[in-house]
Amino acid sequence: MEFDLVELIRRRCEIAREDVRLGIGDDAALLAVPSGQLLAMSTDTLVSGVHFPQATSAHAIGWKALAVNLSDLAAMGATPAWATLALTLPSADRAWVSDFADGFAALAQEFKLALVGGDTTQGPLCVTVTIIGFVPDGAALVRSGARTGDAIFVTGTLGDAAGGLRLSSGALRDDIGATVAASVSESVRGALIERLQRPRPRIAQGLLLRGRATACIDVSDGLLADLGHIGAAGRVGAEIDAESLPASSALLSAFDAPTRQRLQLGGGDDYELCFTANDDDADVLLGDLARSGCGATRIGRIVAEPGVRVRDRQGTEIVVAHSGWQHFS
Amino acid sequence: MEFDLVELIRRRCEIAREDVRLGIGDDAALLAVPSGQLLAMSTDTLVSGVHFPQATSAHAIGWKALAVNLSDLAAMGATPAWATLALTLPSADRAWVSDFADGFAALAQEFKLALVGGDTTQGPLCVTVTIIGFVPDGAALVRSGARTGDAIFVTGTLGDAAGGLRLSSGALRDDIGATVAASVSESVRGALIERLQRPRPRIAQGLLLRGRATACIDVSDGLLADLGHIGAAGRVGAEIDAESLPASSALLSAFDAPTRQRLQLGGGDDYELCFTANDDDADVLLGDLARSGCGATRIGRIVAEPGVRVRDRQGTEIVVAHSGWQHFS
Repeated sequence: MEFDLVELIRRRCEIAREDVRLGIGDDAALLAVPSGQLLAMSTDTLVSGVHFPQATSAHAIGWKALAVNLSDLAAMGATPAWATLALTLPSADRAWVSDFADGFAALAQEFKLALVGGDTTQGPLCVTVTIIGFVPDGAALVRSGARTGDAIFVTGTLGDAAGGLRLSSGALRDDIGATVAASVSESVRGALIERLQRPRPRIAQGLLLRGRATACIDVSDGLLADLGHIGAAGRVGAEIDAESLPASSALLSAFDAPTRQRLQLGGGDDYELCFTANDDDADVLLGDLARSGCGATRIGRIVAEPGVRVRDRQGTEIVVAHSGWQHFS
Repeated sequence: MEFDLVELIRRRCEIAREDVRLGIGDDAALLAVPSGQLLAMSTDTLVSGVHFPQATSAHAIGWKALAVNLSDLAAMGATPAWATLALTLPSADRAWVSDFADGFAALAQEFKLALVGGDTTQGPLCVTVTIIGFVPDGAALVRSGARTGDAIFVTGTLGDAAGGLRLSSGALRDDIGATVAASVSESVRGALIERLQRPRPRIAQGLLLRGRATACIDVSDGLLADLGHIGAAGRVGAEIDAESLPASSALLSAFDAPTRQRLQLGGGDDYELCFTANDDDADVLLGDLARSGCGATRIGRIVAEPGVRVRDRQGTEIVVAHSGWQHFS
């Protein structure tokens, strides 16, 4: 049975890559690495009821399992190449696996990523993807390069996924005290849930940031938490202008202003890129990003004092109760 | 909490490798591949209650999670380099994780393998390791090269892990109708359970087989099942001499002859290497393997007719009821 399920997924992910010398079907895949390139390697697990509501469709789970890993490569400025998939399932449900494979393959095809290994096992639903990409030696975007005076930017909009989670049926938990607008239209609800279920990895934007961003991370745990990682890695601090945080029209219509701000600062799962760069070069960079299909917004600045602080329009510090997704909290 | 657990494991696996340019702590690790080498990449998951009894110690789980992946590299003739670890745990139990890390690190240290990525998540116990090794271009041991007339060999002894499973408290299930000797001594029981819990990956033996074995696989699902994979990949068949199967003294003392044979043919989890080679070169090869610390035994031959058949001393075919571990059976 194991072989059938892996085979079913493999066929949906048929991508011709000359660097895959031997794909799925032996004890290991054999892969050739272009000279001058480093590998960027990362792994992420999604667990049912923890990382997605149990009612989530197999298609969305397949998409998201790959998307969160692609997002890690985007945050390194790497080009996706290969992935392995470890899928633990309660039972060998062919229709479920087929739907999952379609979601996974949609992103794999888009980014020309080859599935080179798989293991299906029986147990509570759990998906682990390990991904590898290429980045030229010296060009990777690391977390540690932010310097005092750098501007802080974020791609796309923030808070949509966290908003979508609060609007999902069977939401995991309301850890952020969200207040939902009295009437949220189905199209707004659908747009936010789509952002939660099918995040867009910012691969093209990560490539544009090579040699230009001083530090970069993807927003998976929440802006404050992830910016905290950049601060800790670079031994600097950050100040955020609360009013500058980019919000989608869907988020604006679904939540009141205080709730929206909490979702944007503390809610995770957006998979946008948060990066720092010299402010003098920002206009050209922002223009390039806008032309790439996903613009970015200046949201604050790196400061010497450690910690992440949020300021309102008047420059007064706002105290934020929730600073991001806590595992095992 | 996630970072603490990963950090705890990382510290136990501190192995200096110059090819790890950036280890755990950023969005992805950055890794340099030696020129002329292909990557061998594989992934395997262990689920509690499926791949090990729930009472198994954390140390044994950590060991085995890495051992089964190292075994895949051994079967390719690859040298271990890096691994990622995805650990799903019911709760953040520091003592359990510490014990798990010790088991994992013991093998990582022995094979100079660097842990380069990790993700800890909350959920039912499940461990996925993805491993990468190096093999010179053209030197990998694949499954598909067996030719009619080749001899079939296996390293070490067979059936010990399956015997240990039947002697474990809380054994998963008795799918093989095992009959245990009336009195099994504690040392025999301990030896067999040790083989189940802490398999030895045959890395050194895989390296010796480069350029000499025509096909190779590790015995994870059971000899008949795994030899079936070699047969299918090479479009050949196999004949096994039942009397030639190597057995440990512990296995001989714990089970009667018919049970032992079923354990050796159908029981999985031995992680020995099953390989084929030209019989003319066998004596030198067997001598080299014996000197490596783990000898091998000739157990049969490759034939043109597809399928795997087992013959007794008189050459009569034996019908075997169980042909290996069936996932989702």
